[in-house]
Amino acid sequence: MQINGKHYRTIWVKEGAEPTVQVIDQRKLPHAFVIEDLNTIDDFARAIREMHVRGAPLIGATAAYGLYNALYHAPADKRRLGKYMRDAVELLQNTRPTAINLNYALNRMMNAIEPVEEMEKMLQLALQTANTIAEESIEHCRAIGEHGLEIIQKISKKKKGEPVNILTHCNAGWLACIDHGTATAPIYAAHTAGIPVHVWVDETRPRNQGANLTAYELLQQGVPNTVITDNAGGHLMQHGMVDLVIVGSDRTTLRGDVANKIGTYLKALAARDNRVPFYVALPSSSFDWSINDGLKEIPIEQRNPDEVRYVHGWFNGKIYKVLITPQDSQAANYSFDVTPAHLVSGLITERGICKASRRGIVKLFPEAGK
Amino acid sequence: MQINGKHYRTIWVKEGAEPTVQVIDQRKLPHAFVIEDLNTIDDFARAIREMHVRGAPLIGATAAYGLYNALYHAPADKRRLGKYMRDAVELLQNTRPTAINLNYALNRMMNAIEPVEEMEKMLQLALQTANTIAEESIEHCRAIGEHGLEIIQKISKKKKGEPVNILTHCNAGWLACIDHGTATAPIYAAHTAGIPVHVWVDETRPRNQGANLTAYELLQQGVPNTVITDNAGGHLMQHGMVDLVIVGSDRTTLRGDVANKIGTYLKALAARDNRVPFYVALPSSSFDWSINDGLKEIPIEQRNPDEVRYVHGWFNGKIYKVLITPQDSQAANYSFDVTPAHLVSGLITERGICKASRRGIVKLFPEAGK
Repeated sequence: MQINGKHYRTIWVKEGAEPTVQVIDQRKLPHAFVIEDLNTIDDFARAIREMHVRGAPLIGATAAYGLYNALYHAPADKRRLGKYMRDAVELLQNTRPTAINLNYALNRMMNAIEPVEEMEKMLQLALQTANTIAEESIEHCRAIGEHGLEIIQKISKKKKGEPVNILTHCNAGWLACIDHGTATAPIYAAHTAGIPVHVWVDETRPRNQGANLTAYELLQQGVPNTVITDNAGGHLMQHGMVDLVIVGSDRTTLRGDVANKIGTYLKALAARDNRVPFYVALPSSSFDWSINDGLKEIPIEQRNPDEVRYVHGWFNGKIYKVLITPQDSQAANYSFDVTPAHLVSGLITERGICKASRRGIVKLFPEAGK
Repeated sequence: MQINGKHYRTIWVKEGAEPTVQVIDQRKLPHAFVIEDLNTIDDFARAIREMHVRGAPLIGATAAYGLYNALYHAPADKRRLGKYMRDAVELLQNTRPTAINLNYALNRMMNAIEPVEEMEKMLQLALQTANTIAEESIEHCRAIGEHGLEIIQKISKKKKGEPVNILTHCNAGWLACIDHGTATAPIYAAHTAGIPVHVWVDETRPRNQGANLTAYELLQQGVPNTVITDNAGGHLMQHGMVDLVIVGSDRTTLRGDVANKIGTYLKALAARDNRVPFYVALPSSSFDWSINDGLKEIPIEQRNPDEVRYVHGWFNGKIYKVLITPQDSQAANYSFDVTPAHLVSGLITERGICKASRRGIVKLFPEAGK
């Protein structure tokens, strides 16, 4: 998508400097646009753990490129390679617990390179697989946009030229993916198709991915949007000011339970209470078909309580970290919650839209039922 | 209650300096403890409008003292007194639209002084009435604490010594009242009675009254508490980590619809979905018995969008206001929402606990049905 009129992806191999990979350091957005080089496996792990990059699909792609980078720096001694790569996988795997895309990408990378003997061939396959993961993500997001567009079109027809008001939580935009985004893909598709849309952007405390990233990328694409506190969505729905909710997912189970950024569940409850359609947009790489009960089986990351006690913001040309609680306050920082399938109107995937149920999912993804 | 071990109320007549009134400037808490003099009617209006003082009961008491202050400075010319006082009432009335306590206090003040002719007697009655409003508020909060304590006691018995986990939203603490608080009164009563309690404090964006004020006053009273984002409460309830929700109210209708700080409705939905009791603590002065449908009839204040775009916090010994959205972002700032009566387990009032329904309310307050 566009930043200051120029096309970017969120991650790419640095030209002429393989295996260095470049990403946008999202901790600085929207205040500063900084591109960061990832040179070593530790750079990749830190970038994921400390959220220079974030968003389930982008976490997956970053881990894939990280493994390629690790392989590039692998010891010449072949006998040490197995353990070295297992350590690399473990390092990347332990960066973030909730998004399943991390496992998906690492498994896919290892499945591609493990059968191969020759190092040059392995390296080539590793790069190729990481690139494929990134390209597929883009294609999946594009397809999600196409399918989701139909939902927006239908609502738009009823609204007779009035903008369709879409609420989203956190950033499931192109900055969370490689391009297009998941939740935002239908919004961008509608905007491109000339359908008037307006987005309510939940600020998404504690890290404010909505206020920082979603507002930023929508503004850069020229999509009308309004930032609101996470508290406001229920009120807006009660007063008919939201036509549709679309969010992303960090992991969705076989029966359709959806792990997503903390607070998503509250919006799903409000949507049901006010008969507002509540859709989850996700690529197949965000499904975890090995589990059913999202509430019991999805690990929920707890991050540093200081993310709650402090807020990062811009003042006088610099990013400051200001304290909003008493100095000696305790805080807790659960990063995700699980929205039970029965609150979800449908899942928008690259293969089409399905019910958030085992039957619905298996119909689109027969391989899930196996 | 206590601040640094010394007993305070939130508002009092300055000793030997009538009609100057002193308040705690709550915009500076928890970072700095500042007492402010209110010398003129404009000081009072600004203190309410710009939230040096806030919270429905305290807004009411501040308006009452403001009218007393206005009367003190009234023109000697008796023919101008009527218009002068009407202007004063209007100025105070227009400071904040949602809390009904403002109307309650101003009506009560005017009813007390209007029948009187003699200025000295009027002044004496005005001060006396303002003091009575403040004293009654304290007594009502104390009684709310006593009644609410029974709810906590019952839960505590089932938990066999484990702390009772109570979630609250915004600040309906003693800082929102004159003393004790509404939602916090049962918590303080339980703490004093030796019942182990732990409070989940919603930070309450955009103005962070939870993180700034509730966390502060609970810490000052020695009540264990943990600050969480407004997004987190649903997740905690899903996992059995909340035994009880208690919030305050800015206005409650005859049928029991509750206007309170934006986001309250989302917590009420989550409480119902997880069978967590959801109580609203309010004095009779926060009832508006003239209306039924809270969603249609309660005016919802919209404040400056910059409260959403910026966050105030403490850095290096100073309060900074940092930007969290892109520079040119739009924001919307609805300050309250309405929780429909059917989501409310009960109302804790100074006369006891009743159902959030016309029948329940009229049983405790027969005067409401007239």
